[in-house]
Amino acid sequence: MSQLSHLDEQGRARMVDVSGKEVTSRIAIARGTIHMGAETLDLILEDKIEKGDVFSVARVAGIMAAKKTAELIPMCHPLNLTAVELELTPAREPARVDIEATVRVSGKTGVEMEAMTAVAVAGLTIYDMCKAVDREMTLGEIRLAKKSGGKSGTFIRKE
Amino acid sequence: MSQLSHLDEQGRARMVDVSGKEVTSRIAIARGTIHMGAETLDLILEDKIEKGDVFSVARVAGIMAAKKTAELIPMCHPLNLTAVELELTPAREPARVDIEATVRVSGKTGVEMEAMTAVAVAGLTIYDMCKAVDREMTLGEIRLAKKSGGKSGTFIRKE
Amino acid sequence: MSQLSHLDEQGRARMVDVSGKEVTSRIAIARGTIHMGAETLDLILEDKIEKGDVFSVARVAGIMAAKKTAELIPMCHPLNLTAVELELTPAREPARVDIEATVRVSGKTGVEMEAMTAVAVAGLTIYDMCKAVDREMTLGEIRLAKKSGGKSGTFIRKE
Amino acid sequence: MSQLSHLDEQGRARMVDVSGKEVTSRIAIARGTIHMGAETLDLILEDKIEKGDVFSVARVAGIMAAKKTAELIPMCHPLNLTAVELELTPAREPARVDIEATVRVSGKTGVEMEAMTAVAVAGLTIYDMCKAVDREMTLGEIRLAKKSGGKSGTFIRKE
Amino acid sequence: MSQLSHLDEQGRARMVDVSGKEVTSRIAIARGTIHMGAETLDLILEDKIEKGDVFSVARVAGIMAAKKTAELIPMCHPLNLTAVELELTPAREPARVDIEATVRVSGKTGVEMEAMTAVAVAGLTIYDMCKAVDREMTLGEIRLAKKSGGKSGTFIRKE
Amino acid sequence: MSQLSHLDEQGRARMVDVSGKEVTSRIAIARGTIHMGAETLDLILEDKIEKGDVFSVARVAGIMAAKKTAELIPMCHPLNLTAVELELTPAREPARVDIEATVRVSGKTGVEMEAMTAVAVAGLTIYDMCKAVDREMTLGEIRLAKKSGGKSGTFIRKE
Repeated sequence: MSQLSHLDEQGRARMVDVSGKEVTSRIAIARGTIHMGAETLDLILEDKIEKGDVFSVARVAGIMAAKKTAELIPMCHPLNLTAVELELTPAREPARVDIEATVRVSGKTGVEMEAMTAVAVAGLTIYDMCKAVDREMTLGEIRLAKKSGGKSGTFIRKE
Repeated sequence: MSQLSHLDEQGRARMVDVSGKEVTSRIAIARGTIHMGAETLDLILEDKIEKGDVFSVARVAGIMAAKKTAELIPMCHPLNLTAVELELTPAREPARVDIEATVRVSGKTGVEMEAMTAVAVAGLTIYDMCKAVDREMTLGEIRLAKKSGGKSGTFIRKE
Repeated sequence: MSQLSHLDEQGRARMVDVSGKEVTSRIAIARGTIHMGAETLDLILEDKIEKGDVFSVARVAGIMAAKKTAELIPMCHPLNLTAVELELTPAREPARVDIEATVRVSGKTGVEMEAMTAVAVAGLTIYDMCKAVDREMTLGEIRLAKKSGGKSGTFIRKE
Repeated sequence: MSQLSHLDEQGRARMVDVSGKEVTSRIAIARGTIHMGAETLDLILEDKIEKGDVFSVARVAGIMAAKKTAELIPMCHPLNLTAVELELTPAREPARVDIEATVRVSGKTGVEMEAMTAVAVAGLTIYDMCKAVDREMTLGEIRLAKKSGGKSGTFIRKE
Repeated sequence: MSQLSHLDEQGRARMVDVSGKEVTSRIAIARGTIHMGAETLDLILEDKIEKGDVFSVARVAGIMAAKKTAELIPMCHPLNLTAVELELTPAREPARVDIEATVRVSGKTGVEMEAMTAVAVAGLTIYDMCKAVDREMTLGEIRLAKKSGGKSGTFIRKE
Repeated sequence: MSQLSHLDEQGRARMVDVSGKEVTSRIAIARGTIHMGAETLDLILEDKIEKGDVFSVARVAGIMAAKKTAELIPMCHPLNLTAVELELTPAREPARVDIEATVRVSGKTGVEMEAMTAVAVAGLTIYDMCKAVDREMTLGEIRLAKKSGGKSGTFIRKE
């Protein structure tokens, strides 16, 4: 198992040097789920059918958060993202919304954190917009589903 | 069950009017967990005992994220937080780090989202700092544990 | 006519001292209009009826921009806004979208700039989302419609 | 007339994929005007002749706002701008300040929004700095004057 | 000598709890100096006399930075500043610009860091604007000159 | 001596056009020092040996500030930094902490300001974390130690 690359030999945090890495086309897909009461999901879906706003606001929040990743995660490299998509899929048994973010870049380092951050902030936004009716919602299973590009190649999580 | 207060009568998003609410002392506690391979936890803990940096960076990231909540969550009110604390507790079987954030304010609205955001970003930072050795880490169970203050009073989640 | 209060006696910019002003309940309403081709408006409205996304994204952008005002306008005081609402009204002859923002605060200074900024950024967002089909759209007539609260009292623009 | 490219087939907002586009040299020029009372313009110009500060602060605000565009406009791509210039031209009959922003980049997508945002924020800053003497100022006619570079080629607005 | 209040009993960073502190009127004044070649100062002053722009940009940068302090300094509390002033005084023998920032707030904690940050960023901006002609400029002596308000009372540095 | 390149012929601030410059590998190293009472340094070092937190928080703050440089320094170009390192070295006689930041990029312009900003904000953070025990600390000698890359080549400050 390799070293934790964000720590130098003396354990001090640093932003890892990627100067020598090649610019390649990179993609990352992250997923997560927010669990809620069945009645909360009903309320969202009723609004969604008519107006779509809870999902719409969460989608915008997730996309904007992907662009803020290097401000939030201290050792992340700033990158000029070339695409961000966010998919919200309501489901039942148990009542939940599945969240999937896809992020692309042409750069020297990958966009895993951007995809994970988009999922987390979209989920937090759903929490915020529904918390008046359901404080017990839980945001979880935030994980990297897939990444490709760069020296370490393709990763696909077994699910 | 009440209405989703972030949506007006026509379902359009808005920042809810809290002008008429009283300034009270408010606290929120949120929790979450990042699951990882046992060897990843070993690596963090060995570094931690010697230098503490993974946890230290994650703690700083979480505290700074709490202050950025109103920038991330579209309908959140900006607030002058009066205290943020972040506790990271490593545990085994399964290997994981438990995250707990406590946020305080004297304000017209609560700090649930600030505590949730601090937990999420601290967890994402642990992921970022360890992802070179473990891409399968999962961040989850992000939830409100407790809140007090304000008109709706005290909430304690049953766990 | 009084002096320009953002300049001191030697003409140097400063953030005016409002320390001695009273905390009062303040409201500001700003308006603006984005003009576009009739076919562009048709496209937005067809999408709007089905999914509402152009207006929804613009509304979120405007609300978030209101919270960023003190970061954008150099001499603006940071304020904890207590409410932001943004109304988008499509109209014809000429084809356009009218934008109105209402912002509230309990503070030592007013929220005119927050309302004006919300209108401007909502309009720019509509431009961004439609510019692939219409580069000739024009954003204009951004103005303060009303403000109340504070020492200078109520202002209502004659229109 | 082509589709609104920021909406996918189901009308959900996304940051359009520009991964496959070529890096080319791109320029955008936007213009706008802030109208004011003749006495307000006199005050600015008297200060300007002596010290130049209203225009100087507005110019800085516009340039800094160009760099913040991807934070403000939800579906905008982050770009490393290579040049921003902002010209403020006072004029009379009617009393006004004309604003022109020129933005350049070597990138996969254009800088129209950066130029439009610079104009809008420079105008809002003039409003802010003069609003104590003139609440009736109006910011308008914000439009794209010219763009070049990229697959869609050169656009010059007829005026 | 008291404990470092930003560290809890186990040495972990936290944002100190100021919930119980009183809202009082607080002022902080910080100072610093940027040293430069005599010819660099000549260039600035010649420009200043004609157009004033180096100082004007530095002043705006310092004022805006004061408002960003809680984003930059991890354990700083966000505060709604009520006034920021920044004075730049050119001097010779040795050639230099003296920088002084005055910040005010009505709040539960002081504004020392806001004043220090304004001085530092104004100085860095002067460096940036002149570095093409003088890379040897040195920014230093950044210090708290005075603070008043709050439980610890008034501090005046002996100089 | 060349002109101040941030000012155009009429002395107006602008973000210099670097569109035509080549993308090269660039490095900048900046240094500074925070002076403090001997007892303050003792306190930091005792905490450091046990827990390391003051230095750890300052290091994170400096690295994050490097990424915010273009937001703070008005005429700075945004850049995708490829590496940031920050070294803090305690020393005595006089009691102090020496700060050194190294920043790298592949870009059209250098990273001097990013390195200078990282040093300044790391120093301010040390001040913030220790100010409860020592208000007389002084941050100074912030200077460019070295830069390489770009048309102007290598600069090494004589010390």
